[in-house]
Amino acid sequence: MIQTGIVGGTGYTGVELLRILALHKEVEIKVVTSRTDAGTRVDALYPNLRGVIDVVFSAPDVDALADCDVVFFATPNGTAMQIAKALLEHGVKVIDLSADFRLTDAEEWTKWYGMEHACPELLAEAVYGLPEVNRDAIKKARLVANPGCYPTSVQLGFLPLLEQGLIDVNHLIADVKSGVSGAGRKAELATLMSETGESFKAYSASGHRHLPEITQGLNAAAKNKVGLTFVPHLVPMIRGIHATLYAQISHNKTSLDEIQALFEQRYADELFVDVLPINSHPDTRNVKGSNKCQIALHQPQGGNTLVILSVIDNLVKGAAGQAVQNMNLMFGFPEDQGLHTLALYP
Amino acid sequence: MIQTGIVGGTGYTGVELLRILALHKEVEIKVVTSRTDAGTRVDALYPNLRGVIDVVFSAPDVDALADCDVVFFATPNGTAMQIAKALLEHGVKVIDLSADFRLTDAEEWTKWYGMEHACPELLAEAVYGLPEVNRDAIKKARLVANPGCYPTSVQLGFLPLLEQGLIDVNHLIADVKSGVSGAGRKAELATLMSETGESFKAYSASGHRHLPEITQGLNAAAKNKVGLTFVPHLVPMIRGIHATLYAQISHNKTSLDEIQALFEQRYADELFVDVLPINSHPDTRNVKGSNKCQIALHQPQGGNTLVILSVIDNLVKGAAGQAVQNMNLMFGFPEDQGLHTLALYP
Amino acid sequence: MIQTGIVGGTGYTGVELLRILALHKEVEIKVVTSRTDAGTRVDALYPNLRGVIDVVFSAPDVDALADCDVVFFATPNGTAMQIAKALLEHGVKVIDLSADFRLTDAEEWTKWYGMEHACPELLAEAVYGLPEVNRDAIKKARLVANPGCYPTSVQLGFLPLLEQGLIDVNHLIADVKSGVSGAGRKAELATLMSETGESFKAYSASGHRHLPEITQGLNAAAKNKVGLTFVPHLVPMIRGIHATLYAQISHNKTSLDEIQALFEQRYADELFVDVLPINSHPDTRNVKGSNKCQIALHQPQGGNTLVILSVIDNLVKGAAGQAVQNMNLMFGFPEDQGLHTLALYP
Amino acid sequence: MIQTGIVGGTGYTGVELLRILALHKEVEIKVVTSRTDAGTRVDALYPNLRGVIDVVFSAPDVDALADCDVVFFATPNGTAMQIAKALLEHGVKVIDLSADFRLTDAEEWTKWYGMEHACPELLAEAVYGLPEVNRDAIKKARLVANPGCYPTSVQLGFLPLLEQGLIDVNHLIADVKSGVSGAGRKAELATLMSETGESFKAYSASGHRHLPEITQGLNAAAKNKVGLTFVPHLVPMIRGIHATLYAQISHNKTSLDEIQALFEQRYADELFVDVLPINSHPDTRNVKGSNKCQIALHQPQGGNTLVILSVIDNLVKGAAGQAVQNMNLMFGFPEDQGLHTLALYP
Repeated sequence: MIQTGIVGGTGYTGVELLRILALHKEVEIKVVTSRTDAGTRVDALYPNLRGVIDVVFSAPDVDALADCDVVFFATPNGTAMQIAKALLEHGVKVIDLSADFRLTDAEEWTKWYGMEHACPELLAEAVYGLPEVNRDAIKKARLVANPGCYPTSVQLGFLPLLEQGLIDVNHLIADVKSGVSGAGRKAELATLMSETGESFKAYSASGHRHLPEITQGLNAAAKNKVGLTFVPHLVPMIRGIHATLYAQISHNKTSLDEIQALFEQRYADELFVDVLPINSHPDTRNVKGSNKCQIALHQPQGGNTLVILSVIDNLVKGAAGQAVQNMNLMFGFPEDQGLHTLALYP
Repeated sequence: MIQTGIVGGTGYTGVELLRILALHKEVEIKVVTSRTDAGTRVDALYPNLRGVIDVVFSAPDVDALADCDVVFFATPNGTAMQIAKALLEHGVKVIDLSADFRLTDAEEWTKWYGMEHACPELLAEAVYGLPEVNRDAIKKARLVANPGCYPTSVQLGFLPLLEQGLIDVNHLIADVKSGVSGAGRKAELATLMSETGESFKAYSASGHRHLPEITQGLNAAAKNKVGLTFVPHLVPMIRGIHATLYAQISHNKTSLDEIQALFEQRYADELFVDVLPINSHPDTRNVKGSNKCQIALHQPQGGNTLVILSVIDNLVKGAAGQAVQNMNLMFGFPEDQGLHTLALYP
Repeated sequence: MIQTGIVGGTGYTGVELLRILALHKEVEIKVVTSRTDAGTRVDALYPNLRGVIDVVFSAPDVDALADCDVVFFATPNGTAMQIAKALLEHGVKVIDLSADFRLTDAEEWTKWYGMEHACPELLAEAVYGLPEVNRDAIKKARLVANPGCYPTSVQLGFLPLLEQGLIDVNHLIADVKSGVSGAGRKAELATLMSETGESFKAYSASGHRHLPEITQGLNAAAKNKVGLTFVPHLVPMIRGIHATLYAQISHNKTSLDEIQALFEQRYADELFVDVLPINSHPDTRNVKGSNKCQIALHQPQGGNTLVILSVIDNLVKGAAGQAVQNMNLMFGFPEDQGLHTLALYP
Repeated sequence: MIQTGIVGGTGYTGVELLRILALHKEVEIKVVTSRTDAGTRVDALYPNLRGVIDVVFSAPDVDALADCDVVFFATPNGTAMQIAKALLEHGVKVIDLSADFRLTDAEEWTKWYGMEHACPELLAEAVYGLPEVNRDAIKKARLVANPGCYPTSVQLGFLPLLEQGLIDVNHLIADVKSGVSGAGRKAELATLMSETGESFKAYSASGHRHLPEITQGLNAAAKNKVGLTFVPHLVPMIRGIHATLYAQISHNKTSLDEIQALFEQRYADELFVDVLPINSHPDTRNVKGSNKCQIALHQPQGGNTLVILSVIDNLVKGAAGQAVQNMNLMFGFPEDQGLHTLALYP
């Protein structure tokens, strides 16, 4: 039984962590911080947790957090980098669900996130928490940078192809669609139901913060610099990401059956990546509330263009679920402990 | 470990049973029938179940079902009453999620369901599966009539008041709102997304089949004949029922605090009925995917009219979850075995 | 051709006014104010209006507004009462879509709206702008208090019954459901899509600001003090209000056919109240974007309880459309000028 | 005043035609056919049309239709080709909203639509009803093949680039998202709200019937054979199409400003194509219920890949609205007669 703390427990990734950890057998939730809701019972704010959690939100306090075995940051970008170092020095493991430790290059980080990095000296140590790539490093890590939601869905879809050098790395396209919970639990006009319901649009088409994170991962897989066009879209639903990925097959001789076999083999031992039969159409609802990524492959008209469809729940495999998967690895628990929830259908 | 069969596994209550039973530690799913999908793997139709269920849909067959310890009917009305008797004679316990055994009066049943009852001799034996009322009888039952979704939400809201004789039984009003999954998984115009999305309406306002079931339960609680007006509505969402109940307080001296105390006491030992603090507004999403009923009380302007708000997930506490709760009781498992799922938020 | 001004043009009722007035043949939109968006083109904020409006948001300025023939206030409560008097003194007619002039009793207003009324001397002059009740007074009015959305749907449903003394006035129940646009265009947590999508709940069940407005109207129709329980609910959709009204018929001899005839007669000359055939179920989408109220009657089980279903679009008949209807009356235009839009289906 | 007939008036494109034509000043709706609903008043099925249409559905009958000036086919594929010839011989103009006359090549048509073409001799005469390309031919046409919804959004986005030879025609990608009304008003499991709400998926990724229609149009614009990958997706909303188009700029020297200028110039005189400012994100709701196509351009990271965003309402510019636009051209009415409706916001 380990003691856990959550910094920023009132956002959507925070409450999703609470939902998962509340039923996790190896975990005791000890500290949940929130500046705005300090003093309120967690289950008063989140009545879905009534009966399983007996904690009161507290103001963030390093000393209280230092008693935990692991602390999750479910905070806006720019917070974890202020506190993580102090916690690490107290021997606390840190899993950061924000973007603070995802990029290895502090300058690049500053360019996209608009502030100086407060703790660049930890960037080299931080392990990018995509278990399908970095499992061994995660097991030994003190500090894990939990991947973003878009980056998780896109990387899992492209990885096998890039690792085997099967596609033209210069013209990758990721047309990705996300439910509105990805925008977080903030009082903002743009994500009101009246603004996003019954409508569909692209946003940040000229450049989104997840672009450098994705390309960093794809570059590593390709051992080469990839050229990626990434266009995110907002879907009138709450949870779910659907990535539609386009790539040109380099070697015309590679058949779709061979590529399917490659994907199945690449993810054969992965508990949370599920390669569907050829020509399937994964549906975001089939992974809603679950930590799974479902992937399917198409080769329209038998042409040169490969289409990879990849779906996740942005708050689970794209955030809190993956964070718990990382925690399980870091503490030697079964990798899927606490992550057995099945998606609701319908 | 008991063997279970599900007749009619392709409807929404059927697949919800599969979702719950697939992770239930005391249960092996042995037979899942479907005329239309016989021969198809269950997880091919329901990709959310990939990895947890290894069964193929089969055509309904009494002999195959007779090997089970318990058989659930998740069928349209009129099917269970054809087969239940044969199964009971084989020593199989039966839990019927349809309406076939809910009314004790066969003539009343015929009036509302438009067909002769095929098995009226079992109506007296069948136990109405509302554990909060009939727990002891359920434990000993061979045949359980699992309550309807509307009746569950309405009865749990009115019961404490009727049992204590605190309200005027002649003028009860139940204004109830349901998500569209309540209409089932049938190819019908009326429940297309284009027909029900972004709109709200009442239906069957002049008389809905759940009315006699509700009044039968309320009469029993009141030990009197109640007068109930019940108007169901369709909400543009998938899961959830919200009952708004209105009753006139008989004794003006009874305060809201006293009534709140009564509700808390009545449901103190109930794992799945959760009385919220006075003046709360339960939200259907806080019970989505969970077996809970959340209830809150209001007395607007301190007047004579009491308002009871009661929410459930129509497919869980209103169908499959309650069926598993009943199964747990019938087989001596912990009542909440397999029913720990927390509602997703957001 | 009259000159119009809109104060508060960036809220949902403001932009709905713009949509209607932009195509109104007798109207020129001259001033649209917004503190936050002053300097921005109206169609830059609302691209649905590109090509039909050539106005820039300006800061509110009495002198500029004083050149208009009529000024609409689509502002939060508490603004119109500060400025209306000055405009009236300049000979400008005023239509206030906020609540400032709806209650005749300034103390009651203060009790529900939490501030002193800035202009109680105008309350007696202000005409409550429900044309189906006050048409003649509206034609002559300088200052019209445009009704609230809930009050419009509830009053139109109860009026014929109260005017004829056919129901028990002591136990009226209005269970009303609204789309989220009723909450306005404000950056608030509670109306995020992640908070309101796929869920249903009551709110303000113990007392909502529209209660005194509704009872004031019902009292006048009944020439008596009515007892009303009013519970509003939030529907996961953008537009639409559905009122489900319950009343006890006083004289058992009155048949549903007679009541239907009474409704049809009462609204025979009303362009915007449409009584559907007996036992219909009006659907909010059939009035979405239109100025119509559709009403249907039920008498469940032929009992003593009458159920009236009444639907409107909260932003049209419940706000901007009714305001334009009032303007048409005030200026002698055809009452339906500019209000011919048909609801989209699906 | 012309007499119009609608064959297949009970589908979504049929009722959308009714909504538009009911308020069109030059049109009298004379015949609306429906096999299933013959004998029913149109406004009984569609209460949004109460008060504006006084027609009863009739069984399809060539003689009755032959008295019309123009007949619209809003039928499933395969119907118009059976009847169009007879109507043309009676001097009736025909606008077919189905796919029967869209492809010039009968064999290609058979390949994609799975049946022999009943009337290949008319394929050469039929004019593809995209006014932005074929306005003059439409004015003189007897038979107009109204474009599909996906093809309209994709062609309007690519046309200026292909006409000017600015992009690599071999690697075009159209990632397109549609609301569920595109699937039509048919009782089908796949488009139930419980199946499509709160979820997102691709479909027909390996080949969709609109592909040959789109490529036929793009080939003509490019005067060359284009290579297109087209992946349609289903959005949990009712109306709207959002096309995200990707193309490689051939000549690196062409700047985004130049391309923007090209689009603005190409569509300068088009009433229904609206080029938004550079880097805008068109939102489907801003064209909902309107006949507009809104387009915006992006060049992410200043690279070689151009992103074109194009939105329409699938039932208006993608079906009934464009059909009325074509009718206006064929009869010499103002091109936008009856098409002034503004999109509702919110």
